[in-house]
Amino acid sequence: MNDPLFSYSLLWQFAFEIFQKIGCPEDQARQATDALLSADLRGIDSHGVARLSGYVRLWEAKRINAKPDIRIVHESPSTAVVDGDSGLGLVIAPKAMEIAIEKARQCGTGWVAVKNSNHFGIAGYHAMKALQHDMIGMAMTNASPLVAPTYSVERLLGTNPICVAIPADRQPPFVADFATTTAANGKLEILQRKNKEAPLGWIQDKDGQPSTDPNELKTGGALVPLGSDPEHGSHKGFCLGAWVDIFSAVLSGANYGPWVPPFVSFLAPPEDPVGEGIGHFLGAMRVDAFRPANEFKSHMDQWISRFREARTIAGREHIVIPGDPERECEQQRMKDGIPVNPKVVADLQEVAKKFSVKFRT
Amino acid sequence: MNDPLFSYSLLWQFAFEIFQKIGCPEDQARQATDALLSADLRGIDSHGVARLSGYVRLWEAKRINAKPDIRIVHESPSTAVVDGDSGLGLVIAPKAMEIAIEKARQCGTGWVAVKNSNHFGIAGYHAMKALQHDMIGMAMTNASPLVAPTYSVERLLGTNPICVAIPADRQPPFVADFATTTAANGKLEILQRKNKEAPLGWIQDKDGQPSTDPNELKTGGALVPLGSDPEHGSHKGFCLGAWVDIFSAVLSGANYGPWVPPFVSFLAPPEDPVGEGIGHFLGAMRVDAFRPANEFKSHMDQWISRFREARTIAGREHIVIPGDPERECEQQRMKDGIPVNPKVVADLQEVAKKFSVKFRT
Repeated sequence: MNDPLFSYSLLWQFAFEIFQKIGCPEDQARQATDALLSADLRGIDSHGVARLSGYVRLWEAKRINAKPDIRIVHESPSTAVVDGDSGLGLVIAPKAMEIAIEKARQCGTGWVAVKNSNHFGIAGYHAMKALQHDMIGMAMTNASPLVAPTYSVERLLGTNPICVAIPADRQPPFVADFATTTAANGKLEILQRKNKEAPLGWIQDKDGQPSTDPNELKTGGALVPLGSDPEHGSHKGFCLGAWVDIFSAVLSGANYGPWVPPFVSFLAPPEDPVGEGIGHFLGAMRVDAFRPANEFKSHMDQWISRFREARTIAGREHIVIPGDPERECEQQRMKDGIPVNPKVVADLQEVAKKFSVKFRT
Repeated sequence: MNDPLFSYSLLWQFAFEIFQKIGCPEDQARQATDALLSADLRGIDSHGVARLSGYVRLWEAKRINAKPDIRIVHESPSTAVVDGDSGLGLVIAPKAMEIAIEKARQCGTGWVAVKNSNHFGIAGYHAMKALQHDMIGMAMTNASPLVAPTYSVERLLGTNPICVAIPADRQPPFVADFATTTAANGKLEILQRKNKEAPLGWIQDKDGQPSTDPNELKTGGALVPLGSDPEHGSHKGFCLGAWVDIFSAVLSGANYGPWVPPFVSFLAPPEDPVGEGIGHFLGAMRVDAFRPANEFKSHMDQWISRFREARTIAGREHIVIPGDPERECEQQRMKDGIPVNPKVVADLQEVAKKFSVKFRT
């Protein structure tokens, strides 16, 4: 019934080997593996090892450069644009975040827009890099168009996630990491596997009418922005997705809107690109560029405790502080192992065979 | 039937006189009036002259200082914290935005957190100040607690709006300005006046159950975060509102969460403040700190045209680009006049009487 469990170190070692097999230098393979596996640990299963074969296929299609020359092409004291040279987003985004952190160290904040990249895994991994420096971290990325703006039947935006990570003192950090749609695509895939209907308000059919069929995206339907419909504020979700798209791609010179190349290798990128690859936007703000870090962090402790202890609706013990479920998942999976869907296991075995590597020893 | 129309200049002159009567220096009265009236022009009627008497009552209650010493209390090359000295947010926020713009001129971006302020009007007014400098503007503010986080029955957040304003070339700018709740409080007030029910998904009753009664907030109910309920992503709307609260108030040293003082003078501020006044967060990013401004703006033109011309659902001519409705409203109201609800007219006449000023000549 339950998915088989794999230890973090087993999955890590396997992905690390595969990234080396496709030609990544050792340090970059290590970085890519850390970023990829953080999704599995934090319970965002759609963005972890389940995507490993996808990255391999993009590399086979010559759409990923395993030895990229990642470089700054434009900068100011607090900003930079990074050209990812078609490398793995899993490697490019951490490099861009390092630049943002260094700029924040120098002048209070650092903001890096990235072009010519690929899927960067989960936004939270990148934003959280700032925390250990007593900085607030931010990360956003655009993605293949699956989302129809309010009143549109065309898919023009990705699920375009945003993460904001904020350090506290004795409390764990505040980490809000969310797609700017009502539901992420991964949730539809789960419903498809289980042959179940989706709630109204997640998807629309090819004519823009509400639908509960999780397969709509295969026949011209679309995900909808956070808010679900105009009466419930879907135009605000559209604003959020558009904001992420513009910061990630128009600021950097990447492809935006319907021109974003698809993650899956069997769909060709648009023939009339408006930029290079996909785009990300990363930021770091030094807390003590605003007020002493200990003051800030003790107020964050108070903010978090007050919200955590709020009176709840019947049947709920406490309200959920952003970042709590993922952190608890990480602790549990590090201890007990990571469940991997049998289809993903088969997929990983295929990858292992392709490179003559052992998957499960 | 229809609300009576007043010319922009008549309302402007009146508000300008009143702000001087409460003791604002002439330049600050002018600034406050410009900011306040921009809400009426842009169709956000709840935040314009309808609030003038509220500001007066806060001044009478000695909670607004008409002659504030607005000053920087902490800074780095790209950041500052501004103490608003209990002044009008309508005056403090523009000053803070000027500082953000000057910092962006110097080092690419500028970010200013504000404490010890009051209601700043509409976020859009402040963020849009950046546009004329070929900068991206951002503005957010916290506000009196009316919103219950997901699973909570307590009101812990304000409607905490965010605005992102992005310049284009031949196209008008992209201006996304929205409360982080499903519906703004102003919409409830309209339903109350019309004695109509609210759609499900806007409000909850005192036990946290969905309700359609727009009067719930008077008996312990609450507005809900964008997303309406957990199945439709209300935890994401909670993330947004929390982000605004923390950036506006924990970074600056203002009051946050349930400690934010109420706008209405008949409710006393909490007796155990955790900071000073309410907080804002303002930002400016120089576009050419990322890429040449003409390149960026021509891509924004393409972004906007592509989205504007997207195929639409039946019955809709085009999708709405953020900022379009407000800009169209402004053009029309500048020409035809601003409709003012009769209750607001009576309220303004009271204010006029209080200061022996003529309202309608």
